[in-house]
Amino acid sequence: MKGHASAVRTTAVLLVLFLASPPAGAEEGMWTFDNPPLKALSAKYGFEPDAKWLEHVRLSAVRFMDGGSGSFVSAHGLVLTNHHVAVGQLQKMSRAGRDYVKTGFYAARPKDEIKCPDLELNVLDNMNDVTAKVLAAARGKRGEAAIKARRAERARLAEEAKKKTGLECEVISLYQGGEYWLYCYRKYTDVRLVFAPERQAAYFGGDHDNFTYPRHDLDFALFRVWQDGKPLQPQHYLRFNRRGAARGELVFVVGHPGRTQRLYTVKQLEFDRDHGFPLRLEFFETTIAALEKYSQRGPEQRRRALVRIFAFNNAKKAYGGMYQAIKAPGFMERFSKTEQRFRQRVASRKEWQRQYGSAWDEIATTLDKYEAELTRRSLHNLWGASLAGKAITIVKLVGELQKPDAERLDGFHQAQLDRLRFNLFSPAPVYPDFEAVTLEVALRFALKHLPADDPFAKVLGELGDPRQAAERLCRQSKLKDPAFRKQLVQGGPTAVAKCNDPLIVLARKLVPILVADEHWRKQTVDAVITPASERIGQARFAAFGKDVYPDATFSLRLSYGTVRGYPMNGTLAPYQTTLYGLFDRSLGFDRQGEWSLPERFWQRRNHLDLATPVNFVCDCDIIGGNSGSPVINRRAELVGLVFDGNIESLAGRYFFDDTVNRTVSVHSAYIIEALRKLYDAGDLADELEMP
Amino acid sequence: MKGHASAVRTTAVLLVLFLASPPAGAEEGMWTFDNPPLKALSAKYGFEPDAKWLEHVRLSAVRFMDGGSGSFVSAHGLVLTNHHVAVGQLQKMSRAGRDYVKTGFYAARPKDEIKCPDLELNVLDNMNDVTAKVLAAARGKRGEAAIKARRAERARLAEEAKKKTGLECEVISLYQGGEYWLYCYRKYTDVRLVFAPERQAAYFGGDHDNFTYPRHDLDFALFRVWQDGKPLQPQHYLRFNRRGAARGELVFVVGHPGRTQRLYTVKQLEFDRDHGFPLRLEFFETTIAALEKYSQRGPEQRRRALVRIFAFNNAKKAYGGMYQAIKAPGFMERFSKTEQRFRQRVASRKEWQRQYGSAWDEIATTLDKYEAELTRRSLHNLWGASLAGKAITIVKLVGELQKPDAERLDGFHQAQLDRLRFNLFSPAPVYPDFEAVTLEVALRFALKHLPADDPFAKVLGELGDPRQAAERLCRQSKLKDPAFRKQLVQGGPTAVAKCNDPLIVLARKLVPILVADEHWRKQTVDAVITPASERIGQARFAAFGKDVYPDATFSLRLSYGTVRGYPMNGTLAPYQTTLYGLFDRSLGFDRQGEWSLPERFWQRRNHLDLATPVNFVCDCDIIGGNSGSPVINRRAELVGLVFDGNIESLAGRYFFDDTVNRTVSVHSAYIIEALRKLYDAGDLADELEMP
Repeated sequence: MKGHASAVRTTAVLLVLFLASPPAGAEEGMWTFDNPPLKALSAKYGFEPDAKWLEHVRLSAVRFMDGGSGSFVSAHGLVLTNHHVAVGQLQKMSRAGRDYVKTGFYAARPKDEIKCPDLELNVLDNMNDVTAKVLAAARGKRGEAAIKARRAERARLAEEAKKKTGLECEVISLYQGGEYWLYCYRKYTDVRLVFAPERQAAYFGGDHDNFTYPRHDLDFALFRVWQDGKPLQPQHYLRFNRRGAARGELVFVVGHPGRTQRLYTVKQLEFDRDHGFPLRLEFFETTIAALEKYSQRGPEQRRRALVRIFAFNNAKKAYGGMYQAIKAPGFMERFSKTEQRFRQRVASRKEWQRQYGSAWDEIATTLDKYEAELTRRSLHNLWGASLAGKAITIVKLVGELQKPDAERLDGFHQAQLDRLRFNLFSPAPVYPDFEAVTLEVALRFALKHLPADDPFAKVLGELGDPRQAAERLCRQSKLKDPAFRKQLVQGGPTAVAKCNDPLIVLARKLVPILVADEHWRKQTVDAVITPASERIGQARFAAFGKDVYPDATFSLRLSYGTVRGYPMNGTLAPYQTTLYGLFDRSLGFDRQGEWSLPERFWQRRNHLDLATPVNFVCDCDIIGGNSGSPVINRRAELVGLVFDGNIESLAGRYFFDDTVNRTVSVHSAYIIEALRKLYDAGDLADELEMP
Repeated sequence: MKGHASAVRTTAVLLVLFLASPPAGAEEGMWTFDNPPLKALSAKYGFEPDAKWLEHVRLSAVRFMDGGSGSFVSAHGLVLTNHHVAVGQLQKMSRAGRDYVKTGFYAARPKDEIKCPDLELNVLDNMNDVTAKVLAAARGKRGEAAIKARRAERARLAEEAKKKTGLECEVISLYQGGEYWLYCYRKYTDVRLVFAPERQAAYFGGDHDNFTYPRHDLDFALFRVWQDGKPLQPQHYLRFNRRGAARGELVFVVGHPGRTQRLYTVKQLEFDRDHGFPLRLEFFETTIAALEKYSQRGPEQRRRALVRIFAFNNAKKAYGGMYQAIKAPGFMERFSKTEQRFRQRVASRKEWQRQYGSAWDEIATTLDKYEAELTRRSLHNLWGASLAGKAITIVKLVGELQKPDAERLDGFHQAQLDRLRFNLFSPAPVYPDFEAVTLEVALRFALKHLPADDPFAKVLGELGDPRQAAERLCRQSKLKDPAFRKQLVQGGPTAVAKCNDPLIVLARKLVPILVADEHWRKQTVDAVITPASERIGQARFAAFGKDVYPDATFSLRLSYGTVRGYPMNGTLAPYQTTLYGLFDRSLGFDRQGEWSLPERFWQRRNHLDLATPVNFVCDCDIIGGNSGSPVINRRAELVGLVFDGNIESLAGRYFFDDTVNRTVSVHSAYIIEALRKLYDAGDLADELEMP
């Protein structure tokens, strides 16, 4: 599940519509820390984590703001995550002739550690239920007015808390608006790279083995958090247990699942199936083809494109798998049956039926009514074109800053600006020739799918031939220089209005269209679907209380389950793989292609304990964004590192099937064995294993 | 694909109806040695085997009459086959306290080799086209009379050839009666066990891993053919090449595929789907449950039942998989489309349409007409009850011997009697308590499914309670003694008529019903379907000439293909596995259950070359009966030993899909490495590797 990171990010492509359904069975569930499934744990496993356990685990967990999870694993601020979560930073640190993605990296001394250009880490310091305040702000209001009032109150509460505590604060909606919570995070931006293995070891099996199991990936990396010029001494971190977890043992996953849509209505799922998926998959394929072609220009171009190619292949496999699953016989029937049961339950009480019963049909009617318009406007986008995206952000930002906080577009509220600036002014390198390729793809894609008289298409059409336009714009633009971007933002509306940078000129034409789109959607679609979804969320509470979990929102969650294999391909998949299996699989492809291994593996194989577990599976419930999450045992010791879901779990965004859905993790023993015997990094292993 | 042997045997359960369809694509095809696919080989691989190559390969190939394949592999008569082909004999050689299935066996000196109780091996000495003679015998006759005339001529030709040459002869029908061939075999019945590994090594992964890949089985055994008290010095045997075959290399499989039904009409397949499969699967499950229960009585009972449990689990997995495949969306559509294309081709020429066009409908009408009657009479059977089966054979035999050869039931013609007696008088041990269990299952199954007024059911009903009857009959019967069976047959009809052995008494009542069934079927069903099938066969010849291959008939065939992996479970299956993979998979299940390994593997693992290939896959076309077939390269060197098909190939009986159907083989290197380093059998390895 390489690139959970990108999975989280690209979800913006689909309409975000969160709804409600009946409670979970089996080990399903991504629970918030205010409502852990204590009853179920106690009943099934005779184990009930206490408040201290929960606090310790929560304060050890780390959110990677570029789309992943991690945890503190030493007294000196070491943070463990996946290589594929780290790979974006590795790429940004690399240059021609210095390719950390390929060679890996190890800082034997603190002073050799390299600072990440734009990595922000978060730790959830505290959380408070602000449902009453948010709902009170909208009391007596309806439709768009209610939405606006709640949005304003959420922005206000976040900014107020941020000012008071100095923490990074946000008000999140859970249970589709059934609850609102103020989450405040400790933020770290001085994060330094300590260790990463070679891509061939971390991503062994490449795109082929991605999302599959049995698996053999050393998919980990280590960062260190610094503060005030010294390594951070975190109050809480997870102890490493290299013995791992036994078959059948209870384990927990603590992390930040990005997005699930298990509470979608049938109509919403059908809408995605018929519009979102085909379009998205076409875009992935087009982009991959363009990037592959670009990377054939030479080794340096290959280096520049490779991480993006991974990410798009990852997205293609993930969404392709989901799409196949949704279209497979029986899937929609199953999904519909769940909804029917829930609606029957609602209909069984008169007052429920009166309050909530019409919500499903309201959503359906709205989606039908605006189907064409929604699809057309969703194509007002320059997907994948990062430099053009920066131009659009700058133009939007200087405009929004003129408005009072309560009236700004989402993403531009006062409490969100630090993070926005941190990313916008990142010193990570920008390659104009590479940017031109992605912009060309974006232009062609929008022009292909939009009608000629569409305003967005008209602006793009005026640019002339997409290839020449993309090359000209990216070559001439000065936006690749972070100082120039900063200067523009500091200059405000005047500077932006006067600027003749060609990407800014383009963005000035596009932003009014995008802003109009947002207003249109709020007034038409959201004005119906948001309150209808909230009512479904309330119906769920009414029917099931808090014995249910909210859909994933890239906020901290706790999943639990046991270490176990599953039926696969006519037999059983083992609960774990070992170093034996790694060498076997490489030899099964004559040590070639995605299954080649760094030479050190072959040279040192006789020094390794080949029975060392490499990867293992458990039936904890995860989704993209959980990459890098620690797997812990009852004693809150780290026994593994989540890095993937199996191919059967791809439909997990919509439906959890505990017979075959599995979380795939790196075993703690493999990390230690590799550090000590393959990478001569015994010091790091010692730091992890320090009692 | 443990127990291809039994798969071949149990096919008697289903109606045997062979028909015709269009020619094969890709590497599909099981070619007879008179018509090897030279053009395709030359065009695709630039390799054209000459007559000498073909003769050498044919005379090195061995048929195991209990349902498998093998080959001569040394100058001193060593025959290589699968452990699971040998396991029937291993079981028959075992006794309480001497369990060769469990412990394996190795005769370090020739005098320690153990003679098999009832193993017959065949080598195809020569083959002649006798189509003209067989068709001439039936000229001017129609329906049942034509069938009878052909049957008589086939029996006559076989007996004539047998007398003349001393060889074992049979006239087989190919291309659904499009051709008839006289096949004459050199027969060997002094066959001695030389080597077999422990079941845990041979059948590693057990029923779970059966029919799947990646795989790690040491599924081989070695016999030696003796003649006149000395090891045979065969003129032809395959040289061993422990380097095996490279990825992408052209390889051949030479063996005896049991049965395919790729030329079934749609109606026939539907008939099997709706009648044959559900009944058969229910029988397998009932038997397995009864045998499992029996084996819980104690370790000796477990030893007695285990090989039969393997066989039935194997059959259940094979037929269950086929059944699922047939019922899966798209399968019948695909099968129908093939038939439609063929029928359209036939319809495209007036004279073809006139001669062949009605055949499909005639088959359909007949199956519809006799549907209920066919199903009822197919239940006149004591499936799995071997001792009762011997009684039935004896009663039938003494009766048939009274008739002229031409008029006997199939299986009792003069040329078939040696083999029948060899099996009937086998000294293999018979366990009355075990026989009672299988007889009880058979009684209950027939009584459950047959109407109460059915004559077969009436006879069984008169026995009283099935458990008590089965126990009484098997305990009291003297048929377990081969001398008694011989004495009865020698005594002829008088001895059998007077005999008061309870199983003979029962058989005397059942045999008239069974004989009547055969006559009924010949006069009604076969009288239509046989000629209709022949016409479809002729249509196929008319349309495609001999660029097609005949359905499998447990006669010698040549398949070709390349060594290559395939798409599986979201990624690629490797073309080979290694000893690394064997240890990995065992550790993946904590070395327990079906994935435990003999201790010698763990003790000696550091002496092994772990990169030794264990199993590999190629896309040659095989089916049950091919177990034990040699895989050879262009130089006719043995590079592997077929032992299974992957789970995707289960529908191969009806349809070959070269994208995923794969043959799974033991690599030649694993056999040598195991003999030398695990079993201290270097002498045997030397004999195999002798240049």
